[in-house]
Amino acid sequence: MGAVRSQALTLRQCQVFPRYSARVTDGPAPDLVADVFARGCTSRAAFEDVTSKWASLVLLALGEGTFRFNALRRKVDGVSEKMLSQTLQALERDGMLTRDVVTAIPPRVEYELTPLGAAVAERLRALADLLEASVPQVAAARAEHAAR
Amino acid sequence: MGAVRSQALTLRQCQVFPRYSARVTDGPAPDLVADVFARGCTSRAAFEDVTSKWASLVLLALGEGTFRFNALRRKVDGVSEKMLSQTLQALERDGMLTRDVVTAIPPRVEYELTPLGAAVAERLRALADLLEASVPQVAAARAEHAAR
Repeated sequence: MGAVRSQALTLRQCQVFPRYSARVTDGPAPDLVADVFARGCTSRAAFEDVTSKWASLVLLALGEGTFRFNALRRKVDGVSEKMLSQTLQALERDGMLTRDVVTAIPPRVEYELTPLGAAVAERLRALADLLEASVPQVAAARAEHAAR
Repeated sequence: MGAVRSQALTLRQCQVFPRYSARVTDGPAPDLVADVFARGCTSRAAFEDVTSKWASLVLLALGEGTFRFNALRRKVDGVSEKMLSQTLQALERDGMLTRDVVTAIPPRVEYELTPLGAAVAERLRALADLLEASVPQVAAARAEHAAR
């Protein structure tokens, strides 16, 4: 029963492949592979958390250095106080950043990426670099599409 | 006046830096830099389009090859027909993929990435690989957070 239980626990996080042959047995658990395509996989949830509208921009900003709340809010053009707060909490929960209270007068709170968050931010920066360099292409595609 | 007009047109797409010194003059346009942090920048819109909940998974799937609509729907676990359809339209508009009607009996529609879409998918795959490999870290961070 121990094997079944540990498999069930793992199944909540990740997908068994091939999906439709997954069976609960007393034998050794089949290979479990993290898969962003699988609805129940933690990697998919984490992927959605870091690519959500504001989280990706917050990660990109923190990839440039430590920020205080208000500086971050100015950097991420258009984010509301509430959305920024919720985004920071979700990223902290996923282990992407730390919230540090600096004992000074007045005390201040700073947000900093963890090593995992920095690795994620690096991948997002590569994507942002590509899209910043592709503005003419995207604009041309949109114009062509609008003209159809 | 030509210079002013073309600058104004470009400003709708991208941000002038430093932001608060931007002025419309008759002189040469200041350097315009695409910036995903800027609300009005095309690169930010494109970044949001490719990182939206379903678009990122669709791009990842098409990074593995050409797909027909229903096969794509099965691959991207949980997407509705309506959302997949809207997502594909938005990605086509941005020049990320093409919709090809294959003349066969019966005719079929296939979706394929453009070179730009393939480059975007490659960056997203790097991010997905990282998160798939980081499931234990994310799960541990969440458990620790829940225990606080």
